Amino acid sequence: MKYSKLFGKTSKTVLHDADSVNARLLTQAGFVDQLMAGVYTYLPLGLRTLDKIKQIVREEMNAIGGQEILMPALLPKDLWETTGRWSDPGPEVMFQFKGRGEREYGLGWTHEEIVTPLAKRFVSSYRDLPFAVYQIQDKFRNEPRAKSGLLRGREFSMKDLYSFHANLEDLDRFYEQAAQAYQRIFQRCGLAALYVEASGGAFSKYSHEFQVLTESGEDIIFHCEKCGYAQNREISEFADGDTCPKCGGTMHEGKAIEVGNIFRLKDRFSTAFGLTYTGADGQEHDVLMGCYGIGPSRVLGSAVEVHHDERGICWPKEITPYSAQVIAVTGKDSGANAKVLETCEQLVQDLTITGLEPLYDDREGVRAGEKFADADLIGLPVRIVISEKTLAQNSGEWKLRTDEKLELVAVSDIVGNLQRFFRK
Amino acid sequence: MKYSKLFGKTSKTVLHDADSVNARLLTQAGFVDQLMAGVYTYLPLGLRTLDKIKQIVREEMNAIGGQEILMPALLPKDLWETTGRWSDPGPEVMFQFKGRGEREYGLGWTHEEIVTPLAKRFVSSYRDLPFAVYQIQDKFRNEPRAKSGLLRGREFSMKDLYSFHANLEDLDRFYEQAAQAYQRIFQRCGLAALYVEASGGAFSKYSHEFQVLTESGEDIIFHCEKCGYAQNREISEFADGDTCPKCGGTMHEGKAIEVGNIFRLKDRFSTAFGLTYTGADGQEHDVLMGCYGIGPSRVLGSAVEVHHDERGICWPKEITPYSAQVIAVTGKDSGANAKVLETCEQLVQDLTITGLEPLYDDREGVRAGEKFADADLIGLPVRIVISEKTLAQNSGEWKLRTDEKLELVAVSDIVGNLQRFFRK
Repeated sequence: MKYSKLFGKTSKTVLHDADSVNARLLTQAGFVDQLMAGVYTYLPLGLRTLDKIKQIVREEMNAIGGQEILMPALLPKDLWETTGRWSDPGPEVMFQFKGRGEREYGLGWTHEEIVTPLAKRFVSSYRDLPFAVYQIQDKFRNEPRAKSGLLRGREFSMKDLYSFHANLEDLDRFYEQAAQAYQRIFQRCGLAALYVEASGGAFSKYSHEFQVLTESGEDIIFHCEKCGYAQNREISEFADGDTCPKCGGTMHEGKAIEVGNIFRLKDRFSTAFGLTYTGADGQEHDVLMGCYGIGPSRVLGSAVEVHHDERGICWPKEITPYSAQVIAVTGKDSGANAKVLETCEQLVQDLTITGLEPLYDDREGVRAGEKFADADLIGLPVRIVISEKTLAQNSGEWKLRTDEKLELVAVSDIVGNLQRFFRK
Repeated sequence: MKYSKLFGKTSKTVLHDADSVNARLLTQAGFVDQLMAGVYTYLPLGLRTLDKIKQIVREEMNAIGGQEILMPALLPKDLWETTGRWSDPGPEVMFQFKGRGEREYGLGWTHEEIVTPLAKRFVSSYRDLPFAVYQIQDKFRNEPRAKSGLLRGREFSMKDLYSFHANLEDLDRFYEQAAQAYQRIFQRCGLAALYVEASGGAFSKYSHEFQVLTESGEDIIFHCEKCGYAQNREISEFADGDTCPKCGGTMHEGKAIEVGNIFRLKDRFSTAFGLTYTGADGQEHDVLMGCYGIGPSRVLGSAVEVHHDERGICWPKEITPYSAQVIAVTGKDSGANAKVLETCEQLVQDLTITGLEPLYDDREGVRAGEKFADADLIGLPVRIVISEKTLAQNSGEWKLRTDEKLELVAVSDIVGNLQRFFRK
């Protein structure tokens, strides 16, 4: 992709009123545009990143047998009345409104009320269990305090997985699998997420949250520095400095962002909708359910909160929108410029064919310093600079975003180098 | 994919109250589930098909230089007041409601009010033009008569492309390109779409619609049987049997489904939002815009309206959810059954590795006739049957969905055969 053609450029205006690091950097770097509080447009760079996160989530959900479906966002009142959630939490959370004929709708903020009656259509015997379905979709919340950029929005991307089981053992088995899939997802997205005990509501002792330690977090957790055991302060009786009951290490208090959560719903929704199955024993039993959420847009915002420096974003490899920024440094010598541009274009073509995805800063009449500053702000893992000077040694300058070291790499080696870098 | 594990089975219940062929077949075959009038859940088969259509649209939009973005569905009142469309058409089309703090929102049914101010952030000079951005997203309409399955919904998938130009010549050039991209999209989706002159509104003589002739269509068009020239009846002075002004052929009246439309917006929205650029002449000019819509969910519904027979759906190759239905025919001889299942599993594995995507009917205890009926209903282009009888000749039975002819193909040739079939 040629940077000169890319929709959504970097902005020199520092957003003093941005409510968070992720809002400020993602906006200045041309990834997102804020439409109103808690509601963002994804520009090409931002959408590429978001799509990479969604794809990682999809792969890991498929790997544990999840089947992708897509439920509507526009939901009918009656199903929410069945569970009582039309009025509690009701409009505190859900946008509710009337359409033609006084028909009442709500916008989806979670989908138990839809997926449970749907499952009922297809489940009758124990042979139909277990299974798990998920969707990746924008959800809506009538949020009192939309803030922190992509971390707390009124419209946001969600992956919600629902699992259906014949008994508690099977639910527990899948719950563990899902927790492991979540750890793989966060790891691939460059996030070290702690597995945190949180309130289980009326039906379980605990649910679990996945929390990423960062000063910008809204949650407070206690976590063991040694073994990683952690609890949300909301349910915890720990104090800072307490001894970890699991390993004897020290429990620390810290701020964190919740990037995922998993619940054993058990029969909470199957009872409400009459979702039962006939067991091998010929008797009717309640189906037991679990639900598992991750917000890809929140993961994106969290990745920026964790991976940035004073100059801009530092994307983790697997979710970077492009692999490397290729920068053509041109000067006043038009003959030299022609050679620089020609080398860059051939390189970009070779990288693209190899399946790597370069972002090519081809702008003419823009100073090298400005191009470097933009590359720092955008934050691709690798920067490759081609100038008259480097070409005198048949080379390009190779620099990692998170490193000050410059290296000269033969132009003919760049494709192989980048392939190796991304395979690691 | 094993059919025994697939979420969303075929249903024997004939939907007598289905409002259309597409609603009936897609529901019975397990592609979609109706949540309420005009609002559907996509089950795994339906979502795969929808995603294939979206991917075709994406490829063709990228090929003409469109850049993908994602705008919100939750939209603020003020931008719609700027154009007057908050009140006209207002709630006739748009779901409008209040959130906390009496803040007023509408749900997106089109996005000119969002994309024009967004473009304004990045356009200042003629050097920033032309460009085109698009999104693929669910849209919402406060539809008075939600009907015809996926053809007229309250929530539906849309691709909307917006283009921005310095002058009318450039808009016209891109408009032609977009029209050609649309023809490629419909062709790839198995739809013969006519390019139909329609009302241009206040700013152009004509806009253009892409219409697919079918008895289930809601639009009436006049079209030339010889050259394909066509007009929507809404603006037409033709009568059935008139002479075609373009080629001397005969104009016929027919029912059709509108699957896409393109408009020259010119300065309608750029004037409202002050979207201007400084020309090479140093003067300020209005940016000229075009907009281009396709509904992937409507394309899906239309494909079923056009491609079905009395037994079920007949998917066009490029949008079929899976390549072939592999059917294991088992009987009472458990030794023979083991061989049939083993052959099927190896075949399914080989097809999957080759990048073909088989749907494997592995159900035990289900009669062959029932499996064939389900395969007919689901409608994959190819059916491959493995039974004790075919294996006696080291073969499988090969049958095209749209053909009665059975062919015996050596098991070792099936992968190559299917590859060739899909490459054609």
